[in-house]
Amino acid sequence: MSIWPVLKDEELSPRAAAVFADIKAVRKTDFINNFWRVLASDPALLARTWDSLKQVMAPGALDPQVKEMLYVAVSIANGCEYCIRSHTAAARAKGMSEAQLGELLAVVGMASETNRLATGLQVPVDEAFLPDPKTD
Amino acid sequence: MSIWPVLKDEELSPRAAAVFADIKAVRKTDFINNFWRVLASDPALLARTWDSLKQVMAPGALDPQVKEMLYVAVSIANGCEYCIRSHTAAARAKGMSEAQLGELLAVVGMASETNRLATGLQVPVDEAFLPDPKTD
Amino acid sequence: MSIWPVLKDEELSPRAAAVFADIKAVRKTDFINNFWRVLASDPALLARTWDSLKQVMAPGALDPQVKEMLYVAVSIANGCEYCIRSHTAAARAKGMSEAQLGELLAVVGMASETNRLATGLQVPVDEAFLPDPKTD
Amino acid sequence: MSIWPVLKDEELSPRAAAVFADIKAVRKTDFINNFWRVLASDPALLARTWDSLKQVMAPGALDPQVKEMLYVAVSIANGCEYCIRSHTAAARAKGMSEAQLGELLAVVGMASETNRLATGLQVPVDEAFLPDPKTD
Amino acid sequence: MSIWPVLKDEELSPRAAAVFADIKAVRKTDFINNFWRVLASDPALLARTWDSLKQVMAPGALDPQVKEMLYVAVSIANGCEYCIRSHTAAARAKGMSEAQLGELLAVVGMASETNRLATGLQVPVDEAFLPDPKTD
Amino acid sequence: MSIWPVLKDEELSPRAAAVFADIKAVRKTDFINNFWRVLASDPALLARTWDSLKQVMAPGALDPQVKEMLYVAVSIANGCEYCIRSHTAAARAKGMSEAQLGELLAVVGMASETNRLATGLQVPVDEAFLPDPKTD
Repeated sequence: MSIWPVLKDEELSPRAAAVFADIKAVRKTDFINNFWRVLASDPALLARTWDSLKQVMAPGALDPQVKEMLYVAVSIANGCEYCIRSHTAAARAKGMSEAQLGELLAVVGMASETNRLATGLQVPVDEAFLPDPKTD
Repeated sequence: MSIWPVLKDEELSPRAAAVFADIKAVRKTDFINNFWRVLASDPALLARTWDSLKQVMAPGALDPQVKEMLYVAVSIANGCEYCIRSHTAAARAKGMSEAQLGELLAVVGMASETNRLATGLQVPVDEAFLPDPKTD
Repeated sequence: MSIWPVLKDEELSPRAAAVFADIKAVRKTDFINNFWRVLASDPALLARTWDSLKQVMAPGALDPQVKEMLYVAVSIANGCEYCIRSHTAAARAKGMSEAQLGELLAVVGMASETNRLATGLQVPVDEAFLPDPKTD
Repeated sequence: MSIWPVLKDEELSPRAAAVFADIKAVRKTDFINNFWRVLASDPALLARTWDSLKQVMAPGALDPQVKEMLYVAVSIANGCEYCIRSHTAAARAKGMSEAQLGELLAVVGMASETNRLATGLQVPVDEAFLPDPKTD
Repeated sequence: MSIWPVLKDEELSPRAAAVFADIKAVRKTDFINNFWRVLASDPALLARTWDSLKQVMAPGALDPQVKEMLYVAVSIANGCEYCIRSHTAAARAKGMSEAQLGELLAVVGMASETNRLATGLQVPVDEAFLPDPKTD
Repeated sequence: MSIWPVLKDEELSPRAAAVFADIKAVRKTDFINNFWRVLASDPALLARTWDSLKQVMAPGALDPQVKEMLYVAVSIANGCEYCIRSHTAAARAKGMSEAQLGELLAVVGMASETNRLATGLQVPVDEAFLPDPKTD
């Protein structure tokens, strides 16, 4: 039971329906997941969010599967179950193997462990990791 | 000024010195960054952390550059400056371009935005994203 | 199933019952939500938490509806489902419209996105945003 | 020292310069803060981020000062110093008094405290806070 | 440079001065750290925060050193440098050894790692860890 | 329904079965909780995680009950339900009373509140809390 209802196709405003049509066209599927159906109660929020996501996840300098894995990693760190499940499914659909998921989880866990150690000890940044001030 | 001192080579216990020797051998460099020099005050913590990191970041099903980028993404989500700077440097050393860093940041930002929307609206997980209970 | 039981009125200690009476008087309702019923197993924790909340949420320089919206925003960022649901209900009871909720969510999402970008890039604070050292 | 340089006006690409011109026009000021000057190294990221922020922070159902205060609250919860300082400055410029900032901080602190109590005790959501399933 | 000034003794309002007098009496020291000097600009926030802290950190079912170590652990997880440094100092003053700090850090790191693994894999809670519904 | 299945004993690989045997021997119980049964799909991740946990939670400078309470506190701050429930059960099994749990929760809540106040006000660290640079 979400805060806003999970809208069915026949309950959409014209602006929300247009966004759904674009999601279907870009993703080449008729399946619209609940995230968009809940956002659809606020068409301006729906439209802006989809527009941004479409740009960010489009093919570019990074492989689409890598982008989905980064999305999963951040969603774990932020503790969002919906996002973990939906983007794990998306990453698998883009070719992520279970062995790759295992390594992703290992990196996320390890990074969280060393993040806390570095923060807890207030480790000073090495000069070697700072940009050259002459070029900044 | 860290909570524990940044130990110099001549201040190391024999156990910590042995870990440093392994870091240098595995990484093929004489440079030991401050994270390890601060951990060195607790040789057991140093040894276990390095042993885990060595296993997790070793070549496997994921590309080493991808692993470093996942590390950066999690470090941003966890808010650890030291880790962001050191692993951004490591990812660049493994070939990450500035265009790839830009896309990584875009995914981290976008994921954080949609994580909050899904959480704030308590979006229910789609059946399609759940594992098949028959095989679970 | 909570870690501590959801206490019924007849299960309360005298000290917890007195806190419940104050909650009912201040809120002008007989409804006591589960948060307080679970805290009631530790009357000192219950009493101190209610006392603080009563002071913080009382009318002051900020509108009560604005305070509830700030509460919702922080609860989303901290990932607390109970708090998101209870304070969204409270904000609606104090007049928050669905259009206002949509804008609240948009700000929470956008802030989370730019928070990660500023952190990921380690943007230096502008002089213009720092307090005047002469008056500090 | 940021991960990417703080670009000066004469170092901007034409696309970044166009975004800066729009920021100046919308904000009615010649001051461009470092966040945008650092993002400017990736004009696509700069343009999309500014475009979203402009929409989200525009006048709407919520008062602009309230939006800035929500931004500050989320930035505190996410631990972003840059964002806390820049949006506290923006909220003050839009009329936030120090008494209002004090109450904002009190709500953010209180919400974080009760968020942890509700999570730590795994308090079950009250039926009264759930949407009516008949209308969902 | 804090958002509010670090007030000197001669700049305090009478209400803030009274809180400082109580801090000195309870802690048996003349040293007032910056956290309270900054909060002093909002005497109501100062008074309520000190009153809560005094109750929470008072001797009780838990050892004062253990309370300070829990404070440090939470401050690391929340990423608050000021709080890590001040409560690490307080824990040392209450007898925490460097070996104990090392084990504290190891637990914080390990917990953060397994937290992410359990969240990333969405591990279902074992029946054995749930309260007995008959007694709830 | 977890992302990976909850493996039964007869579904384990030989390497995972060996880890389970060690868990049973160290913990002196035949009960293996779901966390390990889900990790078992990736025997390398299972083995490394158990090996680390065994070292971190072994008797040392800190009392085992204190270690479990630190684990609970961090799990609350990180928002991991599974971890909160399993380590609260473990802490109780090691002697944590309900009064001690109440104080633990009070410290976690209070620390989260003051963490946000210190971060929101950007309180500068007192000289007294910094290590002596001469010895660093």
